[in-house]
Amino acid sequence: MNIAILGYGTVGSGVYEVLQMNRSYIAKCAGEELNVKYVLDLREFPGQPVMKVLTHDFNDILNDPEVDIIAEVMGGENPAYEFTKKAILAGKAVCTSNKELVSKHGSELLRLAEENKTNYFFEASVGGGIPIIRPINRSLTADDILEIRSIINGTTNYILTRMKGDGLDFDEALKEAQDNGFAERNPAADIEGLDAARKTAILASLVNQTQVECDDIYTEGITKISAADIAYASRLKAKIKLISLIRRIDGKTYASVSPLIINNRCQLYNVDGVFNAVMVKGNAVGDLMFYGSGAGKLPTASAVVGDIVEAAKHRHINVVTIWDPEILKLADIDDLVYSFFVRVPAAQAENAKSHMRIDVIVDAGIPGEFAFVTEPMSGREFKSRSSELEIISRIRAELA
Amino acid sequence: MNIAILGYGTVGSGVYEVLQMNRSYIAKCAGEELNVKYVLDLREFPGQPVMKVLTHDFNDILNDPEVDIIAEVMGGENPAYEFTKKAILAGKAVCTSNKELVSKHGSELLRLAEENKTNYFFEASVGGGIPIIRPINRSLTADDILEIRSIINGTTNYILTRMKGDGLDFDEALKEAQDNGFAERNPAADIEGLDAARKTAILASLVNQTQVECDDIYTEGITKISAADIAYASRLKAKIKLISLIRRIDGKTYASVSPLIINNRCQLYNVDGVFNAVMVKGNAVGDLMFYGSGAGKLPTASAVVGDIVEAAKHRHINVVTIWDPEILKLADIDDLVYSFFVRVPAAQAENAKSHMRIDVIVDAGIPGEFAFVTEPMSGREFKSRSSELEIISRIRAELA
Repeated sequence: MNIAILGYGTVGSGVYEVLQMNRSYIAKCAGEELNVKYVLDLREFPGQPVMKVLTHDFNDILNDPEVDIIAEVMGGENPAYEFTKKAILAGKAVCTSNKELVSKHGSELLRLAEENKTNYFFEASVGGGIPIIRPINRSLTADDILEIRSIINGTTNYILTRMKGDGLDFDEALKEAQDNGFAERNPAADIEGLDAARKTAILASLVNQTQVECDDIYTEGITKISAADIAYASRLKAKIKLISLIRRIDGKTYASVSPLIINNRCQLYNVDGVFNAVMVKGNAVGDLMFYGSGAGKLPTASAVVGDIVEAAKHRHINVVTIWDPEILKLADIDDLVYSFFVRVPAAQAENAKSHMRIDVIVDAGIPGEFAFVTEPMSGREFKSRSSELEIISRIRAELA
Repeated sequence: MNIAILGYGTVGSGVYEVLQMNRSYIAKCAGEELNVKYVLDLREFPGQPVMKVLTHDFNDILNDPEVDIIAEVMGGENPAYEFTKKAILAGKAVCTSNKELVSKHGSELLRLAEENKTNYFFEASVGGGIPIIRPINRSLTADDILEIRSIINGTTNYILTRMKGDGLDFDEALKEAQDNGFAERNPAADIEGLDAARKTAILASLVNQTQVECDDIYTEGITKISAADIAYASRLKAKIKLISLIRRIDGKTYASVSPLIINNRCQLYNVDGVFNAVMVKGNAVGDLMFYGSGAGKLPTASAVVGDIVEAAKHRHINVVTIWDPEILKLADIDDLVYSFFVRVPAAQAENAKSHMRIDVIVDAGIPGEFAFVTEPMSGREFKSRSSELEIISRIRAELA
């Protein structure tokens, strides 16, 4: 069976490498040898083995009836969207790590795959190497999923871990992450929470079996988190994590991405560095957690190649994934109840004490400030009570 | 589509309950309504709704062509083996939680299912509600699995957690577990490690794609673990856990079930009570962990019903699982390198110091004893060095 890889970047070269490295085991699982017939990239890679199969023209792949499966690992919406559509219409299976494309067009591409008796798989689009998409689609089908709570962006988790570990400020930790290859030169999509929001949209769409728009998800990144915030959290024996939340209750679905202060009573507390973890609560299975490398060349490639094997085993047999195109209206996350960690100027301490329902006052030795954690309240109540305060920082907290 | 449930015990009644509770979601995933047409049990359940579908005769189910899928949740080898074979030969899919049957006859029953264009699924046989069988079979197919390290027996993990938490001795903790329904009246299979060994055999067979015999797996239970051992472990900031290990290296496979002293550098350290966790190391994906309820009515039922949905989606389409009948010869676990925690009478302290390579001496305030942790060494070296010592207790340890 012949494979084509679209994009020879980090993930694409990983897919190529994994297919060579575990060739015989993969052949046994897939039922036959998997051969990389093409790699599409605009660049040249002089002296590298990939040159033998390199092409600059997608039509070489599209028009070759010997190509059964395509790994789309180029990322971005275009031209990935056009290439994927054409491939599926030609009856080829497509396996992807492209969360932007899946979150925007997953519903349509799945329907197209069904109509063309082929498959569109996207295990690598959420949680890197962690099996989470297929477990939701193929294992947890007996459960009403009540909640998914996860750390699904390795870059921000690395930055927050380093800020906590060595007291670095955000900019220092970001620079270190970039130097170590854990953050892109243009890190906006990661640090502003957009990458996590795309993955959250995919998970929320799957558990609701209908389209959840990334833009509808309340999203706060970590750019405003300071070393001082981390120090206060440490005083609370807690960490700040960028948490993706999907909660389904009373027929409503809430979805958000935001920093959250958690202590070691939350399983996600120990998920550090570039690791990811996805906690799933079902009404029958209870609490599950899936943990592993959320990014990186070989882990992400492992997920793409796992999809390729699945595609090889289901040639011309569509594996149904229900993802209706109707857009789900999300509920207002200001309904949700959290504690809030708040810093205000010291001069406002009395004002805060009289207006907020304060649970704990926190002292991290920072002069001129008054910092506290409120009792649990809805976001709506918090906004109303804090309307007259000059807030230095405000972070949701779950410390119970 | 019509289902029959064999056995209306804890898991069987859970399967019945989950199929009712999440009826409409399950129907959407399966593509049609799933109706329980029969429940097989020798007992009567007067006044309960199950009476409407209760039968005492397996032939009612076997001979009814309307029954497509059977949940075999009776446990034990007989008559489950005979019922499963007959059902598969009749073209019915069988979904089971029966680790004894799967570990002994999985290979044969899978082959039979393939020949009869039906399926034999057993997600619930390992790790209760945790998706682990299907992730190994359908997601981690791109990876050479180097190691699986797990806590897969909830009873023993509950007992060890209670011994650590409240300083209970083994017998007290066992009695409490029985009183709370976390241990059977006859707990031998759990506390002697046999249940964990059966699950280990299933996982080892799947990753090697060939039969690993439960009886060939080195198995130590927890019956010899005392409150004193737990106290020493606590001094080492460590816990004693019953760990199942599968290690594949240099073409050899090692498999064991035994108590192990681990500290918080091991992810399994925080897996307490009746929770289970399975850590998988692949040569591409790196370290993964799957965590959740390892037993219990609804979690285990969730896994069985997830299999039923998968069977409904693959009616008369066999989903291949490679598990050859040839028996794999396991390597000698005395090759493996561990530290060893050892207690000897105080009179033997000098003898121990001269013969063992001692890393740390441990004092838990227990008079008349000398306790220590060795440097890492093979089991073979440990046996040779300790041959003249009168050992009070000896537990493998990984504290690096």
